[in-house]
Amino acid sequence: MIIIMSNKAADEQVSAVEEKLAQMGLSSNVSRGVQRIVIGAIGDEQAVDQEALEALHGVEKVVRVMKPYKIVARESHEKNTIVDVAGIPFGGNTVQVIAGPCSVETPAQMAASAEGVAAGGCRLMRGGAFKPRTSPYSFQGVGVDGLTMFREAASQHNLPIVTELMDVRMLDTFLEHNVDVIQIGTRNMQNFDLLKEVGRTQVPVILKRGMSATISEWLMSAEYIAAGGNHNIIFCERGVRTFETAYRNMLDVTAIPVLKRETHLPVIVDPSHAGGKAWMVPELSRAAVAAGADGLLVEMHPCPQDAWCDADQALSPTELSALMVEIGGIARVIGRDI
Amino acid sequence: MIIIMSNKAADEQVSAVEEKLAQMGLSSNVSRGVQRIVIGAIGDEQAVDQEALEALHGVEKVVRVMKPYKIVARESHEKNTIVDVAGIPFGGNTVQVIAGPCSVETPAQMAASAEGVAAGGCRLMRGGAFKPRTSPYSFQGVGVDGLTMFREAASQHNLPIVTELMDVRMLDTFLEHNVDVIQIGTRNMQNFDLLKEVGRTQVPVILKRGMSATISEWLMSAEYIAAGGNHNIIFCERGVRTFETAYRNMLDVTAIPVLKRETHLPVIVDPSHAGGKAWMVPELSRAAVAAGADGLLVEMHPCPQDAWCDADQALSPTELSALMVEIGGIARVIGRDI
Amino acid sequence: MIIIMSNKAADEQVSAVEEKLAQMGLSSNVSRGVQRIVIGAIGDEQAVDQEALEALHGVEKVVRVMKPYKIVARESHEKNTIVDVAGIPFGGNTVQVIAGPCSVETPAQMAASAEGVAAGGCRLMRGGAFKPRTSPYSFQGVGVDGLTMFREAASQHNLPIVTELMDVRMLDTFLEHNVDVIQIGTRNMQNFDLLKEVGRTQVPVILKRGMSATISEWLMSAEYIAAGGNHNIIFCERGVRTFETAYRNMLDVTAIPVLKRETHLPVIVDPSHAGGKAWMVPELSRAAVAAGADGLLVEMHPCPQDAWCDADQALSPTELSALMVEIGGIARVIGRDI
Amino acid sequence: MIIIMSNKAADEQVSAVEEKLAQMGLSSNVSRGVQRIVIGAIGDEQAVDQEALEALHGVEKVVRVMKPYKIVARESHEKNTIVDVAGIPFGGNTVQVIAGPCSVETPAQMAASAEGVAAGGCRLMRGGAFKPRTSPYSFQGVGVDGLTMFREAASQHNLPIVTELMDVRMLDTFLEHNVDVIQIGTRNMQNFDLLKEVGRTQVPVILKRGMSATISEWLMSAEYIAAGGNHNIIFCERGVRTFETAYRNMLDVTAIPVLKRETHLPVIVDPSHAGGKAWMVPELSRAAVAAGADGLLVEMHPCPQDAWCDADQALSPTELSALMVEIGGIARVIGRDI
Repeated sequence: MIIIMSNKAADEQVSAVEEKLAQMGLSSNVSRGVQRIVIGAIGDEQAVDQEALEALHGVEKVVRVMKPYKIVARESHEKNTIVDVAGIPFGGNTVQVIAGPCSVETPAQMAASAEGVAAGGCRLMRGGAFKPRTSPYSFQGVGVDGLTMFREAASQHNLPIVTELMDVRMLDTFLEHNVDVIQIGTRNMQNFDLLKEVGRTQVPVILKRGMSATISEWLMSAEYIAAGGNHNIIFCERGVRTFETAYRNMLDVTAIPVLKRETHLPVIVDPSHAGGKAWMVPELSRAAVAAGADGLLVEMHPCPQDAWCDADQALSPTELSALMVEIGGIARVIGRDI
Repeated sequence: MIIIMSNKAADEQVSAVEEKLAQMGLSSNVSRGVQRIVIGAIGDEQAVDQEALEALHGVEKVVRVMKPYKIVARESHEKNTIVDVAGIPFGGNTVQVIAGPCSVETPAQMAASAEGVAAGGCRLMRGGAFKPRTSPYSFQGVGVDGLTMFREAASQHNLPIVTELMDVRMLDTFLEHNVDVIQIGTRNMQNFDLLKEVGRTQVPVILKRGMSATISEWLMSAEYIAAGGNHNIIFCERGVRTFETAYRNMLDVTAIPVLKRETHLPVIVDPSHAGGKAWMVPELSRAAVAAGADGLLVEMHPCPQDAWCDADQALSPTELSALMVEIGGIARVIGRDI
Repeated sequence: MIIIMSNKAADEQVSAVEEKLAQMGLSSNVSRGVQRIVIGAIGDEQAVDQEALEALHGVEKVVRVMKPYKIVARESHEKNTIVDVAGIPFGGNTVQVIAGPCSVETPAQMAASAEGVAAGGCRLMRGGAFKPRTSPYSFQGVGVDGLTMFREAASQHNLPIVTELMDVRMLDTFLEHNVDVIQIGTRNMQNFDLLKEVGRTQVPVILKRGMSATISEWLMSAEYIAAGGNHNIIFCERGVRTFETAYRNMLDVTAIPVLKRETHLPVIVDPSHAGGKAWMVPELSRAAVAAGADGLLVEMHPCPQDAWCDADQALSPTELSALMVEIGGIARVIGRDI
Repeated sequence: MIIIMSNKAADEQVSAVEEKLAQMGLSSNVSRGVQRIVIGAIGDEQAVDQEALEALHGVEKVVRVMKPYKIVARESHEKNTIVDVAGIPFGGNTVQVIAGPCSVETPAQMAASAEGVAAGGCRLMRGGAFKPRTSPYSFQGVGVDGLTMFREAASQHNLPIVTELMDVRMLDTFLEHNVDVIQIGTRNMQNFDLLKEVGRTQVPVILKRGMSATISEWLMSAEYIAAGGNHNIIFCERGVRTFETAYRNMLDVTAIPVLKRETHLPVIVDPSHAGGKAWMVPELSRAAVAAGADGLLVEMHPCPQDAWCDADQALSPTELSALMVEIGGIARVIGRDI
């Protein structure tokens, strides 16, 4: 950690910084330049309260030398981690595609969805029984029964299931239904109590990026899960909020290589929630795989126009199959497969 | 609701829109212009699934005519609502200032804080027993004991207490400790299960704006609380995330007049979390009151540099007292008092 | 155009809107709903002053039905336009790669650069003689001499040249040096006088997106050029400004399919200025081509670490050659070539 | 300047950094920690090419110790600078209000405008003869004749005039018309050639903030003007672009205290372009003055609904007079006057 002080800082102010550092267990090294005083702090940066240093008189800036994340950092684990979901590896050479409807509706819709997912060659299925909706007057999901419907439909095709957990009180129910992957949604990326609880299980977690979360904050949210003992974490980029209104969210394709450098954990992309329109999904999916994503999370509905939720962004089963061919080609160009 | 279609849309496509509207209980009115087909939908817009319409072939855009919020809308309730907190009115002529430390630390710190709050002339006290922190390795709050410490210190000066609820499982504990105002933090603005639960109580709620929430989304989150039966809602603007790095968050001062126009509920401002530095708090507080805020939520610590959390943004008791004088003057210029 | 008024609007207020529309040459059609009055305006929307309507009492919202751009709109020209640059087509089946250094430095550096560009199989060369720099104390480009150096080096390999025009007074000099493509940089996307002047020539223009320009504003800037008579316009996405600080700009990969839908003109991507680091360029380039970009604008320097400008983002000639192989593979997967 | 390297950096890599620094004229000081190698560079940071350092192998981050701006920095000039505009001081104790129409239209409109400005007690007048418009089909300003009309109307009331310069080729015409203050608009904040040219005059310049310019970039643009010899610079905050769509731009009220700390030059606010609606102007104006702005730039039109440009954001003369009373009150609370 480096503390930059004004060159007008009084000696007592410099001493106050050194004392504060000593209290935190760090030693210090002061160098006085013509225009600034620079203090290097030596020791465990994790133990440092940055704001307490910034609150001291004469301090202009405090610069971290270390990354704030530990377990999830590639620095601490050089090789890629493979997260195993019911025998299906995420983070290896194969690009995994998870497909399915936005929300669980009826047994018939789920059966048709599962069939479409399997027919397209996707290895896992998604679907929401609990839906986070901006309006209290919108459809909120079918609830617990949805988990049963989902489980049943997916089992017909041996598809592991991925579904969103919104309420910490529902975790046991998810465990009872043997949910294969717990999805933590965008709006809960910093619901720290929820992160801590899923951190106490060993169920693989897909952690979606918050609406305007920095990559660093996102890694720290994963660190909450990892710190609890659950290292089965998959990051999912799904677009962020910007000034642009021509589509729903801006897919941050740069986050893929940046994350792959910063963490050893797998990174997938949700092209459906990013753009918000079905017609953009093929281009965004291709871009994601080309940029190095380890998988995709794609919305597909047997009859998109009748979907109870996000009808405008789901692919049809035929469109999904066509997409799989394209991204297979792209994966092979960069030495991967699907 | 207005549906705009391409002028190349086939007759069947137009009919499909009309049928979909009929299914949703709306009648329609088609007008064919030279360049676009415009369909006016007549009936209850709340019942409409906008995405399902956007998913239909030939539809270019769907425009809402109505605001999506109801109970919280000024349209539904013209006069200002006064939210009563233990006899102290929010939303009336008086600008209410809530002050106190970022987090509850020790009985002595809370006693000194309460004394500073009362000495400054503030009528309510804030303090966090549970803290949402970006890092799992940062201080997470003292927990339930903090509520007891807080209650005790505040009672010495008859100050109602404001504290943040992060975990829905803690709600009963908050009720047992007679928390006067439940604060829903930035990261939980769209934690819909939490909103629903506080909506079932009658405890006044301060609803902070999400990091990059639009004003419309924020109103919809309040609608979740209101729809449950709890209309004692106070909005709190606390700065949003932008590209600027010269300070922590960008205080959205324009949100104050916009909210006052859109909703009948009170609007307060947190100048401390907005700027992130104590030295900016006076200017931001003055701006907030000048722009019409109904109150402020200010961090004050008996000894800022020793605060366990956000040390760089707390005012000292002396600085708080000076601030109260300034904002009192501004309040009077616009016909209010503090 | 649709004008939405409060249902409390007085008859005179509705009449005032109709009169204003009549003055603008549009007829109107009023429908009174239970909650809103909706006025449909019939006629040429381009002639309408939207703000003048919004200024009228009782008006809540004015919604455009038409796109504001005309010549550049795909609506006005369904097929892709091929922009011909010295015999090299942009917007056709071939993905065109323009490579070269950030800035022109010396004849030797330009000769080595041109050799690297040609060796990599790229068909055009980039290089800046005039550099827009945030600081007045940074290197500002070598100036007019740079154009001569550039022309000479590029001619050795028959490479058309692409270079940035910042000052309208330099346009004649650019024409004298037979610059093949004039680049309008990010900071000048809304320098309307500059746009008007290049619109009076027939030189192909690469129009970079403004730092936080919406796609609609960007199309309107192209419309300025097109309205002057120059339809040889190539859009260049180069990342936009957001809250993220892990890299320089956020490459908006979604803008590619959106632009391809909205305009008939070619769209290329600058992966170097987007990420700001050479190590990200391959992933971003692959993503851009996979998403449908018609070309790339890539920084390459014979010795990146010695570059006088943006040293950290240039590829070496070897890295450029490797990149060409990868993107060639991706282009073929989607039925294109390079 | 501090260079942070990986602790795995080879000795040659560290030496390469030291050599590069030596080439730039700086000496260096290497300290090897357990997890990082930190190199302190001693000497003139202005001479350093940061990207060249970041391009070196093993370098993770380069941190500036100094501010990049010099002449405009408060560090170089502690006291407030008073910019004198035809005898009217900006940056002193008096809050100066500049009012007038968005654009010059006709002699009658300008005469009525000037009367309204003077009647309201404002000391300067604004008006645009050249208008930067998103669309080439919108009204572009009346041009040079507008300067004559403006000059004439303003002279009747002894009002200095403020008007926007968009094209560097028009500078001489502006000088001939004795424009009292040249306004550089948002879209030209980084039109560096324009900045350099106005830097060669001594005419006071109002430098508006770019749509998404950081405060640091804005200060650097001022530095371009100052480096040319013209220190008569007034910053004008006018709202920035964010994700919010409830109003036009987000007024960055925090920029006021931050700028006042970073620079000795005056800072004013344009509340009209910020919010984009006349009804928000009073609240935003009050907030700006309360936060410490040295002046306001307000749109006023004798008949707002007939304005040729931005009709929805102009105050009427009566509204302007009422505003002046309110902000006079606020100015007095913080020890200033208007």
